[in-house]
Amino acid sequence: MSKFSEKYMQLAIDEAKKAFKIDEVPVGAVIVKEDKVIGRGYNTVIKNNSIIHHAEINAINEASEILGNYRLVNCQIYVTLEPCHMCAKAIVDTRLDYLFFGAREPKSGSIESVDKFLENKFLNHKVNYSGGHMELQSIEMLKKFFKSRRRSNNVHLSSSHIGQ
Amino acid sequence: MSKFSEKYMQLAIDEAKKAFKIDEVPVGAVIVKEDKVIGRGYNTVIKNNSIIHHAEINAINEASEILGNYRLVNCQIYVTLEPCHMCAKAIVDTRLDYLFFGAREPKSGSIESVDKFLENKFLNHKVNYSGGHMELQSIEMLKKFFKSRRRSNNVHLSSSHIGQ
Repeated sequence: MSKFSEKYMQLAIDEAKKAFKIDEVPVGAVIVKEDKVIGRGYNTVIKNNSIIHHAEINAINEASEILGNYRLVNCQIYVTLEPCHMCAKAIVDTRLDYLFFGAREPKSGSIESVDKFLENKFLNHKVNYSGGHMELQSIEMLKKFFKSRRRSNNVHLSSSHIGQ
Repeated sequence: MSKFSEKYMQLAIDEAKKAFKIDEVPVGAVIVKEDKVIGRGYNTVIKNNSIIHHAEINAINEASEILGNYRLVNCQIYVTLEPCHMCAKAIVDTRLDYLFFGAREPKSGSIESVDKFLENKFLNHKVNYSGGHMELQSIEMLKKFFKSRRRSNNVHLSSSHIGQ
């Protein structure tokens, strides 16, 4: 059983801040193996012009490159926001062993909110998880982001809408 | 309602053949907008050292780059194999309007086999779909691929295991 570490969630929050700075939905992720960070990522959907570039996917790509392996065994992922189904399936396929996430995503969070995806019997790898870690910091940042977007776009976005 | 075109599924099969040639699980995809192919992709998980690089994701990335937009509205995707949850969520997020797929994937196919993911009420975009198109060609290629892998690896892979 992997133990949650505040240090790594703080690094994931630092990644989310990078997304915030370039006007992307502020979500960040880091991947840890044997107490070393081997992958970092933040949301770059607009920058990369592709919905694939969620924080988790960017972190997985970096870690895979560093390890020289598309399987990330005995690794943990820290994400500031509950992953969607795309990222959850990527987390399963890479064989990550633990997912720690921050804020829950009521509209598309696949782990606890709209689904319990990782509990599915058809998956060929079990990823353990726990959520709500240091969630206030993530929620604050997301709220601030959407508030500034509402102001600049003059459109109404529900405060519960923190999806991408 | 988009109409299935054999021509485009044949192009997706041609993409799958490229994967076969470089020893990757043979899956291919193309994305079509107003009767023009704007994205092609084949499975390059081993080549790119990342489980993200399924055929659908590679095709989405190419189409997004070509259109200069992370939303692919009024576009259809043709895939030789039933998508997994990662690719299905990517297809929803890009706002593709129709998914045509070939062979069903009994172990991880998220559209009809292990789940009916695209029917979920929590999704904010509806993707229509139909499967089984020209499936024999896809199945044949997948069987040939796993047969040759069994021979070279001397391991047993179930013939129904056509997942990645």
